[in-house]
Amino acid sequence: MKIGILGTGMVGETIGGALIARGHDVMMGSRSAGNEKAVAWAAKAGPRASQGTFGDVGAFAELAFNCTSGDGSLAAATAAGPGLRGKILVDVTNPLDFSKGRPPTLFFRGDDSLGEQIQRALPDVRVVKALNTINARLMVEPTKLAGGAHDLFIAGNDGAAKAAVIELLRTFGWSSFIDLGDISGARATEHYMPLWLRLYGTFQSPEFSIKIVR
Amino acid sequence: MKIGILGTGMVGETIGGALIARGHDVMMGSRSAGNEKAVAWAAKAGPRASQGTFGDVGAFAELAFNCTSGDGSLAAATAAGPGLRGKILVDVTNPLDFSKGRPPTLFFRGDDSLGEQIQRALPDVRVVKALNTINARLMVEPTKLAGGAHDLFIAGNDGAAKAAVIELLRTFGWSSFIDLGDISGARATEHYMPLWLRLYGTFQSPEFSIKIVR
Repeated sequence: MKIGILGTGMVGETIGGALIARGHDVMMGSRSAGNEKAVAWAAKAGPRASQGTFGDVGAFAELAFNCTSGDGSLAAATAAGPGLRGKILVDVTNPLDFSKGRPPTLFFRGDDSLGEQIQRALPDVRVVKALNTINARLMVEPTKLAGGAHDLFIAGNDGAAKAAVIELLRTFGWSSFIDLGDISGARATEHYMPLWLRLYGTFQSPEFSIKIVR
Repeated sequence: MKIGILGTGMVGETIGGALIARGHDVMMGSRSAGNEKAVAWAAKAGPRASQGTFGDVGAFAELAFNCTSGDGSLAAATAAGPGLRGKILVDVTNPLDFSKGRPPTLFFRGDDSLGEQIQRALPDVRVVKALNTINARLMVEPTKLAGGAHDLFIAGNDGAAKAAVIELLRTFGWSSFIDLGDISGARATEHYMPLWLRLYGTFQSPEFSIKIVR
């Protein structure tokens, strides 16, 4: 499958690498063509890897992951948008505001989410919120923890798109999914960030996940 | 032990009832003496139960639970404050803003919490944030789920106060605690509410809790 990655940070690199290892062709995108990190990644990741602008990635990909930072995620998705029409965009972003230092605050107060903003801006793109509640390494290797016995939250307006994302994530080892319904479910997982960040500080490790006990 | 409950809602009634069942004397407080719900609760709960104003509760209690709604929690704590000096206030509240309908939004965007506001307003009171991540029934009967194998988050500036609260909550059946550090940890659990509310809607039941998998 031709898969796009928006963003050149650790999340994009990690997901991109895992996809290449599973035989996909991956293009990493950034604001400008020839981005130093994207070029270095593509060179290292081998012949199935390439790089380009966000717009290039939108045109190339059958499915894309939005792995940009919260303050750039809507712009990145919008730049990739024309090529992504009718396609799936897995939105991995979190609304973290680092403008006042650390720990970051949020852009919202339970009243909106990046997932919803992107879906509103790109009504023809099938936005699926997922993976934003865990560390990059665990995103692609969930079985590192308790054999994978923890939960991944997923939200989006398009049931078939969610099913396709679940199928892809199963190849990473995910087995337990909680479908939070339409894209407004992104509000739920994006506001989990302050707890995630606090637990990260408490444990001095990002290698943890949630299991919902019922 | 003489324990106070601020608030006459379901959370206060449930915690109050569980404390009476364990032999404590409990006073339920509200804005005005003779509140209809508090009087009815005290009459039903038996000779160990009483009711009064928030101020009465502060004076009576050795330890109190703040079980008011988010928009009234700071005022309730402040009204009880003079009597609570040097004592423990377990803050169970959540910053839910119902002014724009349902689902509620939050009063904060990762930049503050009710627990912190109350601690700042009452520097001589030992505020401990706890129990605000679960349904009232599970607060006092955690073993209903997975034999109690799920986590309770706790935060506060005073280590001895946290230890005393943990000791009390063990009598409800809690066995697994995650100490999130000082009272700013309240920010973490209070912002979990959008996820809790969404899961409630998804499961059509409030009987669930979190286990952190590491």
